[in-house]
Amino acid sequence: MHIDIITLLPNFWNNIIKTLPIIKKFLILKKNNIDIINLRNYGIKKGKKLCVDDYQYGGGHGMVIRLEPIYKCIKKLKKNNKYNNIIYLTPDSPIYNQNIAKELSKSNKILFISGYFKGIDQRIRDYIITNEFSLGNYIISNGDISTLIVIDSIIRLLPGILGNIKSTYSDSFNKYYYDYPLYTRPYIYKNMKVPSILLSGNHSRILKWRKKQIKKKIETIKDTK
Amino acid sequence: MHIDIITLLPNFWNNIIKTLPIIKKFLILKKNNIDIINLRNYGIKKGKKLCVDDYQYGGGHGMVIRLEPIYKCIKKLKKNNKYNNIIYLTPDSPIYNQNIAKELSKSNKILFISGYFKGIDQRIRDYIITNEFSLGNYIISNGDISTLIVIDSIIRLLPGILGNIKSTYSDSFNKYYYDYPLYTRPYIYKNMKVPSILLSGNHSRILKWRKKQIKKKIETIKDTK
Repeated sequence: MHIDIITLLPNFWNNIIKTLPIIKKFLILKKNNIDIINLRNYGIKKGKKLCVDDYQYGGGHGMVIRLEPIYKCIKKLKKNNKYNNIIYLTPDSPIYNQNIAKELSKSNKILFISGYFKGIDQRIRDYIITNEFSLGNYIISNGDISTLIVIDSIIRLLPGILGNIKSTYSDSFNKYYYDYPLYTRPYIYKNMKVPSILLSGNHSRILKWRKKQIKKKIETIKDTK
Repeated sequence: MHIDIITLLPNFWNNIIKTLPIIKKFLILKKNNIDIINLRNYGIKKGKKLCVDDYQYGGGHGMVIRLEPIYKCIKKLKKNNKYNNIIYLTPDSPIYNQNIAKELSKSNKILFISGYFKGIDQRIRDYIITNEFSLGNYIISNGDISTLIVIDSIIRLLPGILGNIKSTYSDSFNKYYYDYPLYTRPYIYKNMKVPSILLSGNHSRILKWRKKQIKKKIETIKDTK
C-alpha cells in the first residue's frame, strides 16, 4: 500500500514515522510506502512567505486553506499516482467506523489531505476529495492527528502487520468491537482478584462468561451512543 | 493545567511535544505542563528485560498489560499529584464528545493511561481509572494516538490557546458542530466559482444561507450516524 499525506506539519509526520511501531512495521514490509508532502511548498508567494490560507468570503472568524496550493499539489501527485481514495477528515461528515477501515485496507494508493485552521475551501471538497469522514462529534486543532488515526486503523488490518493475524479477527467478536474483561498475572494483587472462572480450565464456561460480560457492557453503554 | 501521560512510547510523545503547534502553544503558557512517564520503568524484571505484559487468564489471542506496573507508577505519581481525572481510552466505553471535552477543560490535573496490545488488566479499570471513553467504533494499534486526540480537544478550549477565542465558540453553531461551506480567495479558479451570495455584502442573507447549508448537511449525514 502506498500512502501520501498532504500536510503543513512535515516534522510531525517525519517523527511519527520514526517513533510509532505500527508505522515502522508497515514501512519495513515490501511494497509499502508513506510520502509526506509539504503543502507550504505549493503556497502563494507573499513577500518572502509562502501563503496557504486567507480570510473567508462572506465574513466569519478563522482562516480557510486556499484552493490553488492543494489543487497544484494534487495535480502534480496525480501525474505519477492513481489514487483509489482521496480522503479528508472533518467533523461535518459521515462517522468513520471499522467497516470503512476494512474497505480502505483493500486500496493500493490513498491520498490524505490534512485540514487546518477553520478548514479547506469547499471547492476542494466538491471537486477533488473522494471520501470524507468524521471521527466523532468533537473538535481538534488539526487534521493530522485524525489522519494518523485512520492510517493506523487501516494498516493494522494489512497482512503481516500484527504479530498474530487472529488478534485482528477476534476484534470483531460483536458489532461494537467490545472486548470481554481482560486479566493477566498475578492472580491476586493488593486484594484485587481475578474472577475464579478464568482459572477453571472449562473453556465453554469461560466463553459463555465472556459473552455475558460483553452483553452487559453493550447494555450499559448503549444509552450513551 | 497539568497533564501526565503513562505510555510505552516516550519517544513518540517527546517528538509530539516538539512538533505539534497546539501542544507547543499550551506549554509556552504559564502553569501548563505535560509529563511523559515511561511505563517500562515500572516493569517486572525478566532477565535483563523489564516486562509489562503477560498472557490472558482464561486463554485468548493477544497480550494484556499487567496490573502492578501501572499500580506502582500511579501510586508514585499520586504522592505529588491530586488528579481530577484518570482517563483510559478504549473502544468498549461511552463515546467521547465535545461536551466531555468542555467538562475536562475545567480540570487542573489529568492523568492519561495509554493502552497497548489487547488492553490493560480489568482491575486497573475497576479500581483506578475514573473516566473511560471511546473515540468511535474502530480499532487502532495503541492508545497514545487516542490520548493525543483527547488532549488536543481539551487544550484548544483553554484560554490563550487559539488565536481568536471566538473561533472556539463559533464551533458550536449547532449540536453536531457542523460548519457552513467555507470559501476563500480566489473567486474563480479553473471554472470553480464561489457562491455569489458570499460576495453580496448582505450579512443577514449570508447568515441565512449558511444556516440552510448546515441544515442540508445534517439532513444528508444523519442517516449514517
